[in-house]
Amino acid sequence: MPLMSAFRIVLVEPLYSGNVGSVCRAMANMDLSDLVLVAPRIVDGWEEGEKLAVHAGGLLERRREVATFGEAVADCAAVVGTTARAGLYRQHVRTVRDWAPGLVQIAGQGRVALVFGREDTGLANDEIARCTHLVRIPTGTSYTSINLAQAVMICCYELFQAGGAFEAPEEKSAPVAATQRLRLQELWRAAMLAIGFMNDQKADHMMQGFQRIFSRGVLTEDDASILMGVARQAMWAADRRSSRDSGPDATREAP
Amino acid sequence: MPLMSAFRIVLVEPLYSGNVGSVCRAMANMDLSDLVLVAPRIVDGWEEGEKLAVHAGGLLERRREVATFGEAVADCAAVVGTTARAGLYRQHVRTVRDWAPGLVQIAGQGRVALVFGREDTGLANDEIARCTHLVRIPTGTSYTSINLAQAVMICCYELFQAGGAFEAPEEKSAPVAATQRLRLQELWRAAMLAIGFMNDQKADHMMQGFQRIFSRGVLTEDDASILMGVARQAMWAADRRSSRDSGPDATREAP
Repeated sequence: MPLMSAFRIVLVEPLYSGNVGSVCRAMANMDLSDLVLVAPRIVDGWEEGEKLAVHAGGLLERRREVATFGEAVADCAAVVGTTARAGLYRQHVRTVRDWAPGLVQIAGQGRVALVFGREDTGLANDEIARCTHLVRIPTGTSYTSINLAQAVMICCYELFQAGGAFEAPEEKSAPVAATQRLRLQELWRAAMLAIGFMNDQKADHMMQGFQRIFSRGVLTEDDASILMGVARQAMWAADRRSSRDSGPDATREAP
Repeated sequence: MPLMSAFRIVLVEPLYSGNVGSVCRAMANMDLSDLVLVAPRIVDGWEEGEKLAVHAGGLLERRREVATFGEAVADCAAVVGTTARAGLYRQHVRTVRDWAPGLVQIAGQGRVALVFGREDTGLANDEIARCTHLVRIPTGTSYTSINLAQAVMICCYELFQAGGAFEAPEEKSAPVAATQRLRLQELWRAAMLAIGFMNDQKADHMMQGFQRIFSRGVLTEDDASILMGVARQAMWAADRRSSRDSGPDATREAP
């Protein structure tokens, strides 16, 4: 069983089908597929939900609806409650990023439920008491209430990242090695002298500047190739110019 | 200036006001407040947007609308484009988590724009070409298209976490130290013998089991207090029982 399919999203008494639909899309984005609603109180029909699920409509259709919290999590090895509040029964709350590696480990052997409370009142204390883990999503202090589907997305995203299924994009070109970097510096020194950007006295100082600029980030071999091409071309242009016209006045001739 | 306010969210030609409203709420959750829309094409009026912004309606009202991409990012030291695709001009794409620390550093000195493309077609190549950084949000392979507001939330959330403004919840009770843990083991050994759960011959073996169970996670001083209280109470109950009635039949007396 692929790791992410061991995670179940449980929504307790959701009110708005749009949120449920957005939850489906977020789940599908992160490879989750097991959705259970506890005693849904949908007030607006399912049209909005179907619209917002977009290509995750199948997941919305395959949702299960149960009457109680207990039924929703009965077969789960870990029950992770989400809460925006601190306080009673909530002492051992952690951020979702803190718990994620441990939950991924459990998901390797058993089912893990992530439980999200009502849009209006969250999870009740007796529901919190049945959770094995409690998570809180970091927020600023001025507006701490996160939309239900956004909260689900952040949790799914953190679990997906912790699961390591995603291959982070990698630049194909390797970082340039010191030898190549030295060659780049030499070419630029020659080119900057050739085009008269600097003279011999200033060269060492100016080359420190280029070294700094070329080291601001990771310079790849492709980047170095481009920059060496520039230097060679500048030398070629300077050479052609000097063979045609040796004076600096040449820059002022008509185009 | 607080760090998060150096980040600007730029939405290019958004179509649905509900997305813009959800973006406002996500921004407010993560302490961002600077929203710019480039040539919005809102097709559904602003009612849905106001509804979904909930308590971030002020942020929605204070949005700026500009005609071009260039105007939206003119004063920005970094322009971060989001893309779901790899390919042309997108070689140096990184995950948002990879870039986040570097972007937070830039935000300490300059303004940083996070640019999100159209709901239908994303960012155009000439827009990608104007970005200093490109990010991709990790997704599964079966459904890679993330809702606009969800994408904004993940980016804001990663920046907020990297910014370090959030104080992660910490358990007040410290992890129990070895001396206290030894005391707990001794009390449980005595209690398990007193209630007849094990006999002297099995004691060492069974205590290995309790040691394992009590070490599954971090055991705090509060946890240890509770468990030691259980042991003391069990010994008290066993002692009272044995002074009243020394036979195991006592367990079968009427309640």
